[in-house]
Amino acid sequence: MDLFDVVKFDSNGLVTAVVQDDASGEVLMVAYMNREALEQTLKTGRVTFWSRSRREMWVKGLTSGHTQTLKSIAVDCDGDALLVRVDQVGGACHEGYRTCFFRRAGADRQLEITGERLFDPKQVYRK
Amino acid sequence: MDLFDVVKFDSNGLVTAVVQDDASGEVLMVAYMNREALEQTLKTGRVTFWSRSRREMWVKGLTSGHTQTLKSIAVDCDGDALLVRVDQVGGACHEGYRTCFFRRAGADRQLEITGERLFDPKQVYRK
Repeated sequence: MDLFDVVKFDSNGLVTAVVQDDASGEVLMVAYMNREALEQTLKTGRVTFWSRSRREMWVKGLTSGHTQTLKSIAVDCDGDALLVRVDQVGGACHEGYRTCFFRRAGADRQLEITGERLFDPKQVYRK
Repeated sequence: MDLFDVVKFDSNGLVTAVVQDDASGEVLMVAYMNREALEQTLKTGRVTFWSRSRREMWVKGLTSGHTQTLKSIAVDCDGDALLVRVDQVGGACHEGYRTCFFRRAGADRQLEITGERLFDPKQVYRK
């Protein structure tokens, strides 16, 4: 069965994409794909999203060099979420961390920084 | 810093929750929490969502026995996604699989069932 027969895009034309490091299993980020971003990701092998804030196609790593190469895409039972396994170069997070989920809390709700910071965003994203 | 100072609920009062098996690193499912579900999850240690389809609080595993015990919650850089690490009993997916992401495709888009089926939904959810 074709992936596109199962994926359900929402009323904004988007599907949730969870990105996981294929080697380590670390969850790196959550973003959104429209049909074009999903098609482009499959065609190019370069993971591509739809940026809701910038309202444009977003080839991950195009600015920073921290690209994501596609390994596989899984779809959930409802068809409204994707699990995108990737080879991540550098840090997935624009704040310089390997993962966007770099702050963690337990039952006491207090956040601790648990992620590894790999780069200084000021050096990577300067104009 | 308190987790609730960072989490951003959307216009429907929801935040995306990615659930990951704490032991294996497997991504099990994506669901949604409102403030009450997140508070209840932290208070009880029993992972609880807001069901968008049923429009009610949803204590995972209450019907099936396939509960999720909270290990930790990480929040992403934007505050609009949570990574909930759990001890999963049985299968997370109502279709009987360990993970809801039981179908996977490569660049050819063709889906294969890669997940492990643990139970027959007809036996678990019968009335």
